[in-house]
Amino acid sequence: MSFVRLACAAAALAVSLPALAQYAKPEDAVKNRKAAYTIMGTQMGRINAQLKSPTPNVAAIQAATGTLAAVDHLPFDAFGPGTDMVSDTRAKPEIWQQQAKFKELGDKMIIEVDKLNAAAKSGDIKAIQAAFGETGKSCKACHDQFRKD
Amino acid sequence: MSFVRLACAAAALAVSLPALAQYAKPEDAVKNRKAAYTIMGTQMGRINAQLKSPTPNVAAIQAATGTLAAVDHLPFDAFGPGTDMVSDTRAKPEIWQQQAKFKELGDKMIIEVDKLNAAAKSGDIKAIQAAFGETGKSCKACHDQFRKD
Repeated sequence: MSFVRLACAAAALAVSLPALAQYAKPEDAVKNRKAAYTIMGTQMGRINAQLKSPTPNVAAIQAATGTLAAVDHLPFDAFGPGTDMVSDTRAKPEIWQQQAKFKELGDKMIIEVDKLNAAAKSGDIKAIQAAFGETGKSCKACHDQFRKD
Repeated sequence: MSFVRLACAAAALAVSLPALAQYAKPEDAVKNRKAAYTIMGTQMGRINAQLKSPTPNVAAIQAATGTLAAVDHLPFDAFGPGTDMVSDTRAKPEIWQQQAKFKELGDKMIIEVDKLNAAAKSGDIKAIQAAFGETGKSCKACHDQFRKD
């Protein structure tokens, strides 16, 4: 192996090691990513309920979008090596076969949540509704492709 | 029933209703509180790992304490009526028998997490270590009293 290839291999290892080191075992990673998605689903449901109300509670929406923005990145260190072999998860094998696409959809969701959180802070219900719709679409885009029904 | 007692009963109902309305069913509440505790445990473990390292990564600690501060309040709307009857949880019946004590310990934990998060932002490892110790104690105090082994 040439020095360059060895250096590249070492660099690749350096990039993947933090993901491995974040959890003691793959089951812990799966438990954590499911936990984050559980919380995100609940907060999305709460925002939806407020937006359907004739008198939406902006403070409740802000609390929910703040929580979303705080946890939305958490799943993405929990799809590391070996976590595709854990049972009792709706994660499709395609996640590990199409990692660039999976990351793209995850990044998109995080951007939409940031916009939703900013809209919530503004208190403008129309803007919140629009951003909530886009956030929901970004969730669905990933679920349609990478989550089992 | 006198008007005063009726008014008091109505007021008590008003206080407890939001907790009920937060989740469609008790199982959802339990799933959400467990999700929050899972994330909190993981983040505490990451902070501990950094503090045991000869070269603690302050940015990693800050990320973890920020997540802790964002989710530490989430369990406490998820111990509402009926959630004491859900199986597959380590929550002891004492939670619902000693609600004031349970709330006191929860509030204490939230205060300690806030202090830990502030210490992390300062970047002072000694201060972080001290605040982490106090946070851990606040977790343990509640687990010892209200969580099954």
